[in-house]
Amino acid sequence: MAETTSNQMWGGRFAAGPDAIMEAINASIDFDKRLAAQDIAGSRAHAAMLAATGIVEASDAEAMREGLLTVLSEIEGGSFEFSAALEDIHMNVEARLKEIVGPAAGRLHTARSRNDQVATDFKLWVRDQLDAADQGLTALIAALLDQAEAGADWVMPGFTHLQTAQPVTWGHHMMAYVEMFGRDLSRVRDARKRMNECPLGSAALAGTGFPIDRDMTAAALGFDRPTANSLDAVSDRDFALEFLSVASISAMHLSRFAEELVIWSSAQFRFVALSDRFSTGSSIMPQKKNPDAAELIRAKIGRIFGAQVALMTVMKGLPLAYSKDMQEDKEQVFDAADNWLLALAAMTGMVGDMTANRDALEGAAGHGFSTATDLADWLVRERNLPFREAHHVTGSLVAKAEARGCDLPDLTLEDMKEVHEGIDTSVFDVLGVHNSVASRTSYGGTAPVRVREQVARWKEVLG
Amino acid sequence: MAETTSNQMWGGRFAAGPDAIMEAINASIDFDKRLAAQDIAGSRAHAAMLAATGIVEASDAEAMREGLLTVLSEIEGGSFEFSAALEDIHMNVEARLKEIVGPAAGRLHTARSRNDQVATDFKLWVRDQLDAADQGLTALIAALLDQAEAGADWVMPGFTHLQTAQPVTWGHHMMAYVEMFGRDLSRVRDARKRMNECPLGSAALAGTGFPIDRDMTAAALGFDRPTANSLDAVSDRDFALEFLSVASISAMHLSRFAEELVIWSSAQFRFVALSDRFSTGSSIMPQKKNPDAAELIRAKIGRIFGAQVALMTVMKGLPLAYSKDMQEDKEQVFDAADNWLLALAAMTGMVGDMTANRDALEGAAGHGFSTATDLADWLVRERNLPFREAHHVTGSLVAKAEARGCDLPDLTLEDMKEVHEGIDTSVFDVLGVHNSVASRTSYGGTAPVRVREQVARWKEVLG
Amino acid sequence: MAETTSNQMWGGRFAAGPDAIMEAINASIDFDKRLAAQDIAGSRAHAAMLAATGIVEASDAEAMREGLLTVLSEIEGGSFEFSAALEDIHMNVEARLKEIVGPAAGRLHTARSRNDQVATDFKLWVRDQLDAADQGLTALIAALLDQAEAGADWVMPGFTHLQTAQPVTWGHHMMAYVEMFGRDLSRVRDARKRMNECPLGSAALAGTGFPIDRDMTAAALGFDRPTANSLDAVSDRDFALEFLSVASISAMHLSRFAEELVIWSSAQFRFVALSDRFSTGSSIMPQKKNPDAAELIRAKIGRIFGAQVALMTVMKGLPLAYSKDMQEDKEQVFDAADNWLLALAAMTGMVGDMTANRDALEGAAGHGFSTATDLADWLVRERNLPFREAHHVTGSLVAKAEARGCDLPDLTLEDMKEVHEGIDTSVFDVLGVHNSVASRTSYGGTAPVRVREQVARWKEVLG
Amino acid sequence: MAETTSNQMWGGRFAAGPDAIMEAINASIDFDKRLAAQDIAGSRAHAAMLAATGIVEASDAEAMREGLLTVLSEIEGGSFEFSAALEDIHMNVEARLKEIVGPAAGRLHTARSRNDQVATDFKLWVRDQLDAADQGLTALIAALLDQAEAGADWVMPGFTHLQTAQPVTWGHHMMAYVEMFGRDLSRVRDARKRMNECPLGSAALAGTGFPIDRDMTAAALGFDRPTANSLDAVSDRDFALEFLSVASISAMHLSRFAEELVIWSSAQFRFVALSDRFSTGSSIMPQKKNPDAAELIRAKIGRIFGAQVALMTVMKGLPLAYSKDMQEDKEQVFDAADNWLLALAAMTGMVGDMTANRDALEGAAGHGFSTATDLADWLVRERNLPFREAHHVTGSLVAKAEARGCDLPDLTLEDMKEVHEGIDTSVFDVLGVHNSVASRTSYGGTAPVRVREQVARWKEVLG
Repeated sequence: MAETTSNQMWGGRFAAGPDAIMEAINASIDFDKRLAAQDIAGSRAHAAMLAATGIVEASDAEAMREGLLTVLSEIEGGSFEFSAALEDIHMNVEARLKEIVGPAAGRLHTARSRNDQVATDFKLWVRDQLDAADQGLTALIAALLDQAEAGADWVMPGFTHLQTAQPVTWGHHMMAYVEMFGRDLSRVRDARKRMNECPLGSAALAGTGFPIDRDMTAAALGFDRPTANSLDAVSDRDFALEFLSVASISAMHLSRFAEELVIWSSAQFRFVALSDRFSTGSSIMPQKKNPDAAELIRAKIGRIFGAQVALMTVMKGLPLAYSKDMQEDKEQVFDAADNWLLALAAMTGMVGDMTANRDALEGAAGHGFSTATDLADWLVRERNLPFREAHHVTGSLVAKAEARGCDLPDLTLEDMKEVHEGIDTSVFDVLGVHNSVASRTSYGGTAPVRVREQVARWKEVLG
Repeated sequence: MAETTSNQMWGGRFAAGPDAIMEAINASIDFDKRLAAQDIAGSRAHAAMLAATGIVEASDAEAMREGLLTVLSEIEGGSFEFSAALEDIHMNVEARLKEIVGPAAGRLHTARSRNDQVATDFKLWVRDQLDAADQGLTALIAALLDQAEAGADWVMPGFTHLQTAQPVTWGHHMMAYVEMFGRDLSRVRDARKRMNECPLGSAALAGTGFPIDRDMTAAALGFDRPTANSLDAVSDRDFALEFLSVASISAMHLSRFAEELVIWSSAQFRFVALSDRFSTGSSIMPQKKNPDAAELIRAKIGRIFGAQVALMTVMKGLPLAYSKDMQEDKEQVFDAADNWLLALAAMTGMVGDMTANRDALEGAAGHGFSTATDLADWLVRERNLPFREAHHVTGSLVAKAEARGCDLPDLTLEDMKEVHEGIDTSVFDVLGVHNSVASRTSYGGTAPVRVREQVARWKEVLG
Repeated sequence: MAETTSNQMWGGRFAAGPDAIMEAINASIDFDKRLAAQDIAGSRAHAAMLAATGIVEASDAEAMREGLLTVLSEIEGGSFEFSAALEDIHMNVEARLKEIVGPAAGRLHTARSRNDQVATDFKLWVRDQLDAADQGLTALIAALLDQAEAGADWVMPGFTHLQTAQPVTWGHHMMAYVEMFGRDLSRVRDARKRMNECPLGSAALAGTGFPIDRDMTAAALGFDRPTANSLDAVSDRDFALEFLSVASISAMHLSRFAEELVIWSSAQFRFVALSDRFSTGSSIMPQKKNPDAAELIRAKIGRIFGAQVALMTVMKGLPLAYSKDMQEDKEQVFDAADNWLLALAAMTGMVGDMTANRDALEGAAGHGFSTATDLADWLVRERNLPFREAHHVTGSLVAKAEARGCDLPDLTLEDMKEVHEGIDTSVFDVLGVHNSVASRTSYGGTAPVRVREQVARWKEVLG
Repeated sequence: MAETTSNQMWGGRFAAGPDAIMEAINASIDFDKRLAAQDIAGSRAHAAMLAATGIVEASDAEAMREGLLTVLSEIEGGSFEFSAALEDIHMNVEARLKEIVGPAAGRLHTARSRNDQVATDFKLWVRDQLDAADQGLTALIAALLDQAEAGADWVMPGFTHLQTAQPVTWGHHMMAYVEMFGRDLSRVRDARKRMNECPLGSAALAGTGFPIDRDMTAAALGFDRPTANSLDAVSDRDFALEFLSVASISAMHLSRFAEELVIWSSAQFRFVALSDRFSTGSSIMPQKKNPDAAELIRAKIGRIFGAQVALMTVMKGLPLAYSKDMQEDKEQVFDAADNWLLALAAMTGMVGDMTANRDALEGAAGHGFSTATDLADWLVRERNLPFREAHHVTGSLVAKAEARGCDLPDLTLEDMKEVHEGIDTSVFDVLGVHNSVASRTSYGGTAPVRVREQVARWKEVLG
């Protein structure tokens, strides 16, 4: 009977009633246990500082520091029993510490609060992800440089609107992504530098009257300095939002490359062959190789950017200082970090394994009058035609070739002279796709010589 | 040595190399096992249909249907061993079925594919959430109706811009949320009706040549009809997106109410007292009751709307039919559904428990010349002044009261007559907050009589 | 000197100082003038009701109603002078009305406020867009039906993962989009029905004491009924958010189709030719036809979904009743509506004009062993093999064909019998792409007969 | 008749037919004319370089450069006639240049294309906005520093969960926002530095064979260097996305401060009075001052973050190099920049004008046992109690005070000694709110001395 009432009141899933609901919505231990190592590192630094400043006895501090190591090894070893009743990782660790070292554990929380503690833990965790992303991006760039170096002079179609525009080199195309992931790397490093200030010692929100040494804890935890305003320090989640925006832009780059790989793997393009280990097959169509990894990478921008939307929405309009809303920050960042790093690793694997189909690339590069611009430029450069007139002449030649069902280099010199007297045999030098790409030697251009220069520059940058 | 190289190649976290990465990005069993009951229900319906249409032997079908029940009870009992190597819930179930019933299990996959199977499973799951949301919204509305009925004539300030505007009734304010959650309910029901078409039998993407009976499986699974286009059926995730948009708008309503509860719980407002079980305390400040549940509910819009962004981004620009990108759909919907239902239940609990502070509400209602509009309306109605002139007179009276440091009802009749001759004692009837709210009897207005009518109407609607 | 100081204070762009800044951030007339026709319709209905209920004199009401028509024709004729000092469309119209009809205009605002007025105006505007979207979707579906009917039996590759999976029909592919846009249409109609309640008469937030007749104004403006809670009515923007979510899902469908058109237009696919008028060319490459319209349609989901994010973010956590934040609603909805309707019209034009390249479609359909599934199904159906064994046999045959460099129908009967004795010549019936599609007659399947049935059904639905 | 048909085909709004639709969706001149000054600056730099490298005659280049100045002054003067038929700003300028200088204008487009031209123009525009945001943020910080300096020792309640937690200083609260906007400033500068590479000379996508000098044009336009990959240069919109993410985080900070101002302006809080010029009044309630500017600033995060969502969605999955989808970038950035700068200016104005209500702040600061933590800390520090025991004692004292209906400082020494023997009169030093804040002298703490230090540090930083 009571159960029926409860069911009516709460709807099926939450028939257990208010206490279970409050525990379900309030407890964070299910996810914030991922901060265990950071929480313990922070507490150990805090304890050492409390001793150094005479706020607690050195022996008490030492006991706490040792006890915390024991807790850490229990957690890492899988023997630690997490309790939802203790709500979060901080209380779980502290409760276990008390069992290990006794009442001295009660002195650990002097001159700090959960507000600065969680801000510190979370920052340390995010900083680790930035370092992992630094490594992940570097590995991906290295894989792209290998592809670019090998194919510095392979010719392929350069597209605009997915229509053939001009020939480019495979190496040049790979290097475009090196630039993108290079900017991601630069953003990762800026973000790390900006966020590397230690909130510990901000206490609940107002700082503390204990004679703490915030420079000491900051240094012990690898921070450049302590945060300069305690109210801000416990209210701030910029570091998480900036992490998510850096990850989102990087995921966008990954989605573009993944899209190209999916299109290039189609039977119609056949520009690349992805390796078996990053594809999935079909039991009855042995030739079928679905680019699953590329598709999944393409999709990752969804959840990563979704996480940014989620946290931005949470933070919108929150008054200072700490509000419980901010507990919704962690799962978003955890998920985005996991998936970004995974996508970087998967893309690195695919790039390392993939094989360009040079014949298909070169065959496609020459179609569609792709060197018409070279012809027009030749007229401007060698015959001093104004650009617009050169374009007109080129258009006539393309029309003639199209009428013949051939491509530009297949026209005879006579055909050409009919359209413009000044053309001579040297024009054929610019009509081949290899000549075309070799000629585009402007800085940043597609010429193999330029591509190799950029590969060399990037190798130097990466060290 | 090999390990070092691998480390350099993959970056720290993914040192395990390409196979581990591919498994990590590709396998879905960690999350899609939540579809187990739906998957088994779908397979049992399919098996029954295969028998009824003569595509498989009745005895084989019966064996499969029994075996599937065994699998289900293993999963529900926790004894089932999920395997990541088998990738997803469908393969895990089928592999176990084969162990139980032998080769006959191989006939289950006749005339279907994983594409229509997963679409069916996921639709069934989403439909269950819509039903749970229907219950959850109904329970919340019921709790609001109780509050509205009890406080149909309690007076409180009505705000615009968080500035006191006019007095309203507590019941009227509660009923505003009934309207919002009532629209949510209406959207839930529309979404359920629209999505209730069965994809099973669409096979990989083109339908099948087997003489299947799609009406039979649709009916067995509670669908209104089979989907009308097999390509669309395996490519469609509208039902998930519509679920997320319905949940997002509802989460927005929850965030508005939660914001009010947080503000109303402040020491400055003291409009409501939340119950202990939906608040958290502080060990040293026993009077402190943090509205944690309200804050967490306010924040839930973040992840729910973030999920919608995530899935919308995934679906953007995907060619037909199935692409692996779509595997990213489930976790978003799972998380959004869990959190929406949890937030509804928590809000229902808070509303059921909360106590309005009638003194504080009524005290605040009368401040700030909140009945100035009533005065102006009185001048229009009783003295036939044009609206703009009535406003001018009212402004002068407010200025006079402000100069005196009193409120409008504290002015004497003489004070009033100095400003406008036509005023007589009957004006005081409209200056009290109770008279004010009682007078606003237009349909949908704040008068207690109107509030009670709406409560009665909604009780009838809910049945 | 003063200018320098001001510059330092405000930064370059806002050197004009605080008053200009406040006007810039506060005034809405630049955009809400699009609501002029709705505003005047609402005021005319209100005036008629004020007269019918005796709140104002019939002659005054008639003067106002006539005057409002004059204002409308001035606005439509372009002679109306909008004033930013008057902030918004409501004040601009009322001020001009006063010039035309004199003090009687002052009675128009009796028993209403800007809060219910703007809610009414905006709802009327959104309702018009829903009606326009209804038309736009219907036109697009009609264009798709024409394509589907013409190509009900044209064969093309059905893709999963952009890899050839099974042959399907052109008509079936077109009809997949009919289903999508059909669901959009259904959402449009549900949204219209749900939002069709009239806020007018809710006044500032509490209703009014005047004896107004809300049913009369609701009916005059084409609403089904008045809103039931005045606080909710002035705080509610669900109708705008639901409009945006319906538009977003529809824009997602458009983005998928546009993506296919871009890919299909590439030199590598050549599945369709878009008309010149929905493409742009290049002066020197006459053969180049960039699918600009398709790309722009693909992109529209960005701003439409961005608008939904914008308004959802605005509404998050807003306390009741009206807050000025809500003024940010209109520009988002205006922009999304304009772009959605434009994209629908452009897609309708492209679909109407586009020409399928039947040779390229059919040629591609047969590649890649696309009928392997048909072969496996034949073995199950005709030789009673269990599904998994049939797949094994098929795999062996595909491997044999691949080794020969031929396709499945090119194998001889002897080749086939070597792999499985039971195969006879009737197997060749299922190996051709035309036979394949013709065989898939399950409801919703790709067989021409099924496609034609669906075309007929939809024609009936559209009437 | 034709019109009717067209109407049926296109739906009402687009009755004009396909050509009008294509022009409406394709032309960008309506919005990209805002790039006129940047376009002309880019062209002038390009012309100078073409002459310096001998690609065009010096006299031709000089004519073009002069002619471009004429075009600029026509545009600035309002006499320029923009043409939708010429599609975009680039063609509009070039066409007019040709009228002015004749055929020589045809040489301007040598060695560039619209792709690198628009990337350059847009980057220059975004860079200007970053500079304006730098100024705007600096001005806002300066206004906050003034508030912080004036109120370095004014006491107010520090909140967590909108519940009084501990007393803080007004200056400290202001300085929390200085930190936030200071991080925004740092992000603005990082973004500017990263994006300051010149795309000009990347041509359509492959670079060019003309002997251009990209360093020269880069320097002339204030860029640090040319971009290193031409494919990337024409495909990249990172600079726009990074601008939007920097603006979004800053808008989030603005929304938090605006929320506080709205709450603080309520009759219940009365912590601040906003100036008339950033509020709006009501004609009949002269005391009513709606914080419209604060509400509008709070809302701006919606459209700014919505713009980021829009552009991120557009860029998702776009293959290289240029696609027409990217034309959707500008309106989003224009709108976000306008609104961010406007919101910064409005907030600066409000902060400069606002008056803290010191009595209300101080009165609220002492309520709710806000110094209980100080008492607990005193027991730890002065009586060497472990933290948890100190908390227990404090809890008992709070309970005693609550039972008496008084606050902590109102208890007698005897009351206190009953709970803990070790308490003496020196405890009263920590129970007053002024003593409380003065004691919190840890780095970043709320003590006036710390606040003044931070004010001084920031003044030095801003120079």
